[in-house]
Amino acid sequence: MIRFNSDYTEGCHPAILEKLMATNMEQTEGYGEDAYCKEAVEKIKKACHAPEAEVHFLVGGTQTNVTVISAALKHYQGVITAETGHINVHETGALEACGHKCLTIASKDGKLTAKQVADYVDAHFADESFEHMVQPKMVYISNPTELGTIYHKEELKALYRVCRERGVYLFLDGARLGYGLMCSENDMELSDIAANTDVFYIGGTKVGALFGEAVVITNEALKTDFRYNIKQRGGMLAKGRLLGLQFSVLFEENRYFDISAHAARLAEKLKTELKNMGVEFYIDSPTNQQFPILPDKILDKLREEYSFSYQARVDEANSAVRFCTCWATKEENVDALLNSIKKLLGR
Amino acid sequence: MIRFNSDYTEGCHPAILEKLMATNMEQTEGYGEDAYCKEAVEKIKKACHAPEAEVHFLVGGTQTNVTVISAALKHYQGVITAETGHINVHETGALEACGHKCLTIASKDGKLTAKQVADYVDAHFADESFEHMVQPKMVYISNPTELGTIYHKEELKALYRVCRERGVYLFLDGARLGYGLMCSENDMELSDIAANTDVFYIGGTKVGALFGEAVVITNEALKTDFRYNIKQRGGMLAKGRLLGLQFSVLFEENRYFDISAHAARLAEKLKTELKNMGVEFYIDSPTNQQFPILPDKILDKLREEYSFSYQARVDEANSAVRFCTCWATKEENVDALLNSIKKLLGR
Amino acid sequence: MIRFNSDYTEGCHPAILEKLMATNMEQTEGYGEDAYCKEAVEKIKKACHAPEAEVHFLVGGTQTNVTVISAALKHYQGVITAETGHINVHETGALEACGHKCLTIASKDGKLTAKQVADYVDAHFADESFEHMVQPKMVYISNPTELGTIYHKEELKALYRVCRERGVYLFLDGARLGYGLMCSENDMELSDIAANTDVFYIGGTKVGALFGEAVVITNEALKTDFRYNIKQRGGMLAKGRLLGLQFSVLFEENRYFDISAHAARLAEKLKTELKNMGVEFYIDSPTNQQFPILPDKILDKLREEYSFSYQARVDEANSAVRFCTCWATKEENVDALLNSIKKLLGR
Amino acid sequence: MIRFNSDYTEGCHPAILEKLMATNMEQTEGYGEDAYCKEAVEKIKKACHAPEAEVHFLVGGTQTNVTVISAALKHYQGVITAETGHINVHETGALEACGHKCLTIASKDGKLTAKQVADYVDAHFADESFEHMVQPKMVYISNPTELGTIYHKEELKALYRVCRERGVYLFLDGARLGYGLMCSENDMELSDIAANTDVFYIGGTKVGALFGEAVVITNEALKTDFRYNIKQRGGMLAKGRLLGLQFSVLFEENRYFDISAHAARLAEKLKTELKNMGVEFYIDSPTNQQFPILPDKILDKLREEYSFSYQARVDEANSAVRFCTCWATKEENVDALLNSIKKLLGR
Repeated sequence: MIRFNSDYTEGCHPAILEKLMATNMEQTEGYGEDAYCKEAVEKIKKACHAPEAEVHFLVGGTQTNVTVISAALKHYQGVITAETGHINVHETGALEACGHKCLTIASKDGKLTAKQVADYVDAHFADESFEHMVQPKMVYISNPTELGTIYHKEELKALYRVCRERGVYLFLDGARLGYGLMCSENDMELSDIAANTDVFYIGGTKVGALFGEAVVITNEALKTDFRYNIKQRGGMLAKGRLLGLQFSVLFEENRYFDISAHAARLAEKLKTELKNMGVEFYIDSPTNQQFPILPDKILDKLREEYSFSYQARVDEANSAVRFCTCWATKEENVDALLNSIKKLLGR
Repeated sequence: MIRFNSDYTEGCHPAILEKLMATNMEQTEGYGEDAYCKEAVEKIKKACHAPEAEVHFLVGGTQTNVTVISAALKHYQGVITAETGHINVHETGALEACGHKCLTIASKDGKLTAKQVADYVDAHFADESFEHMVQPKMVYISNPTELGTIYHKEELKALYRVCRERGVYLFLDGARLGYGLMCSENDMELSDIAANTDVFYIGGTKVGALFGEAVVITNEALKTDFRYNIKQRGGMLAKGRLLGLQFSVLFEENRYFDISAHAARLAEKLKTELKNMGVEFYIDSPTNQQFPILPDKILDKLREEYSFSYQARVDEANSAVRFCTCWATKEENVDALLNSIKKLLGR
Repeated sequence: MIRFNSDYTEGCHPAILEKLMATNMEQTEGYGEDAYCKEAVEKIKKACHAPEAEVHFLVGGTQTNVTVISAALKHYQGVITAETGHINVHETGALEACGHKCLTIASKDGKLTAKQVADYVDAHFADESFEHMVQPKMVYISNPTELGTIYHKEELKALYRVCRERGVYLFLDGARLGYGLMCSENDMELSDIAANTDVFYIGGTKVGALFGEAVVITNEALKTDFRYNIKQRGGMLAKGRLLGLQFSVLFEENRYFDISAHAARLAEKLKTELKNMGVEFYIDSPTNQQFPILPDKILDKLREEYSFSYQARVDEANSAVRFCTCWATKEENVDALLNSIKKLLGR
Repeated sequence: MIRFNSDYTEGCHPAILEKLMATNMEQTEGYGEDAYCKEAVEKIKKACHAPEAEVHFLVGGTQTNVTVISAALKHYQGVITAETGHINVHETGALEACGHKCLTIASKDGKLTAKQVADYVDAHFADESFEHMVQPKMVYISNPTELGTIYHKEELKALYRVCRERGVYLFLDGARLGYGLMCSENDMELSDIAANTDVFYIGGTKVGALFGEAVVITNEALKTDFRYNIKQRGGMLAKGRLLGLQFSVLFEENRYFDISAHAARLAEKLKTELKNMGVEFYIDSPTNQQFPILPDKILDKLREEYSFSYQARVDEANSAVRFCTCWATKEENVDALLNSIKKLLGR
């Protein structure tokens, strides 16, 4: 079985395991106050060109989303998200379990526009019953989105501008950030993300780490007492060094970006070759998630050798499915997949 | 200023005030365990043909919705609702503040169909990531809906059937129940509601009481420890007798239904006459809320003498607005409103 | 059955019912934005000598406590309370259901001292694991307390001083405030309460109203968006006028204080006469709740004619019970109770 | 700096790292549905003599406590715990943030007795105001406790009996379970724990793993939909194999118990030698946490070379501190610590 069903099918970059081995019996402080965390914080601040930022390490994405959002909001405030947003769909209501509503906006490509956000917030305060509705106070976006699309610099800047004008925080979920920043369509650097959000995170789980997400907070108001929130939401890892150490290795030289580029390249190959076979796509994704539309009749056969996920029914005979590449994907496996599809499609 | 902006603009039916006067200095047990509550419970159970039902009295609608729903659900479960549902739009996220997500289904008329519910629940359990999504465990409907529409008996029976087949509770918000049951389009009695839901409530606040909603629980599983939930959600009125006494008066003879019929008749008059003037409607409501589409240019003028609420923009020059009649509405005020609109429209 | 088991056994002061009658068919705005609410707000601000205060009306005590506290706290913050505090004991965890922990301090008389609060807060921040513990951010006191005791002016001032020095809010639950302010031991006026707390409330439910609590917010930080919180916690009464009107009547002339004084006088009579019979007390309460210690063997007999509540076992043969007087208590009933006890004690 | 301040100062048992290395590039299912998790589940069920049990893996202790407890309780129910319980003291109100109250019982040694629990639950239901109080539905104990003490078999059996008789769940926090089971005072095996609780967990974070806790559910009612709860509380690790693999290695041969025995032996040595120096103890702990009482004047000096945690002030000149041993503690470090204390004490 060759797996393309997610971007966390393997363990971690070997350099991380080596470092774990080398440091295993060292004694350190717990809860993220060790030297490895400090080192990783410095590397990340530098990579972000954000010397004043606060950086915290959490274990997983749902936990990170919940911690960041609930830390920012008062009880009666909610977070604007695309309907497709991970927090709205695939976190078993973790955010609502913290008391906060997802304020959804319909979106075809998984993105939110500055205008959509401006209109939503303005409509709230213009409504005579505004106090009877959840107050929008944060905007959640993911980059890449759950549909693999990315924000361009001008889009993000415009979003951040309408947020600041309205006193609303902008939070970017970067679970797959590397794959966005290293795809050919991208025009942003890490520092652009840092400069145009109030808080965001750099995903490790899907990009080379065993696990771990690095939250970067640039807005002063969101820094206060953040560690209480981490602890309350169950995210304060006892052996916090494991997180610091992993991000320190990922941000050594250009590793985080290099391994991301590998995944982006293979995804692009997959897309190009499938297009060459005449396969159409559910959405035009430039990143490591690809959503081809395939005939239902070949899916079961394909599943015998490859794992992938089902995305949506397109018509009676065809479905969109999802293939993910990642830092660990072998090119030979992509080639094998392409060959298998080609054969099954009879092209 | 003549008010049509809501159905709670006046105090209460005079018979209630008289009873309050007559019993004021009596001493009773608190928290709903007095003789007036017991009396009202019996009357309501009889009116519902539901001798095994449990009846509880709460103060207001948001509180009732939150108490009923949170009592029924486990943390990871949510409630299916039309996007227009009161719990989803106009309760400042009260339900999310209790930890539960509104699972929304788009609806043009404010209603949910049996098929929509069946499809939603079935899709959840068919999804390979079902554990990553909130589990649907209750369906919330309102009758009349927030748009004034009502369920017909076959619709409700079909809904209840798909709910029972799937182990999902059906909860009916009857904040305006009387106005639904007494409109000419209706084909249900109170006992049909009781027989085709797991729990519902009979609105008092909008139908003749100073305040109060009577929750009727027919599903055994939802009866357990319900009073703990009332107390925890802040709904256990110290002088619970005030609720029992009001519902006892409303269910004396046919009062609740008679006063509802009055509102329904005036709403119908309003609708018919406006139609006669050529006014179109945002939605075809048979109940006490009417949503005519009026030219923006007459709205300010109309507001000088009448209060009403703004519903939605229809096009560049026209808006849907809402007029409510209620048990206390004077026919002469409806006539005055009709005359004013006629004059302003120049018809 | 003559009831002394609570201070909400009767309806309301007759002047309130008269006003309800007189205004019943008036049409008003909903949700507390009517003229009666505005009038009541002005009267209360004047009575508090607090022209800058914000005043809101809620229906009941649990709802008020939860709304005020959750509005003030961030998720990781909690409220310091005496172990005996109503929020900690008798609200079915309503506050925890909003996500906040009661940080309890042992107290024999139901009161907290300035030193206790200072020590608690200082210990929190001195602890190396402070981020692993709930951050204290508000102090909850009741006056009179659940045990009938009251704060003296110097005690309250000292409490407020340590709170301000530590950036912690002081919230006073005044469900029985009138009975505290009008007892002979008291040395404070309403304006002293307003000047030495950040937020407090004036109880109506137990002091002459059908229901209702008036929240007075003097701290600017706590005023922001308070109405969103009321709505979210289910406390925004549709016919808000009912609350405004009741408080307006209570604060007409000196009514709130006069009727409170009546209850205080009868409680004092009860206490003095019982002491004259040699009865000892569980706690020395100067207010409308009295906690005599009576032999178990007379309790059942006494219950045949009087209702009262059980407080605590004192020794094998004796228990503390609670008798409440209120604005509506008849002196003849107090006399009858005293005679019955005297006879049963054989004194 | 030699660290005794916690039992998670090192990385993990080398066999775990080797296995991580060996399996790193394998592709597996995510979210705990891989072969390593299945393998670990089987080993644990066998070690527990509980073939019907359900086993789940979570990352950390706070997360595990919150997930288990909130999965078991309805909104109005709470969990009984010793005042010293980790959930009550050191989890930043994580449980309250899920809506549940800690129902505390005072305890000198960190343990709860069957009688305390029986009395607490019985008192709740005997109280006339029971619906105004949080309903006790689960008992939380830790073994070893936060004070290092352990339950004996008869104590646990008695506790479980009163719980079952009253319909209350018994949950055992085994964050340090190995250190309890392998201390000389212990008379239980893992299977005794499984047989006398409804749910418990086997701590990995403090006992040889990088991180991870294995939840063992024996009560059928608590198994339903448990994975939804894990996901909602942020505990569903994407690369779940990391947890399965670690527990699989720990339960290979007798490893979990052998490495625990090492820590227990060194703790005993520490205790015996300190006693020989005349040092008294804050509490008589038989496990890996030792709480000697030392003069304040030597603490700063001791801190120059050793880290340990401050427990409590004992008198004006002396404090209780805590030293932890663990699976990784070197005997030479214990010896060095003993020598340093001896010298500083001048004995």
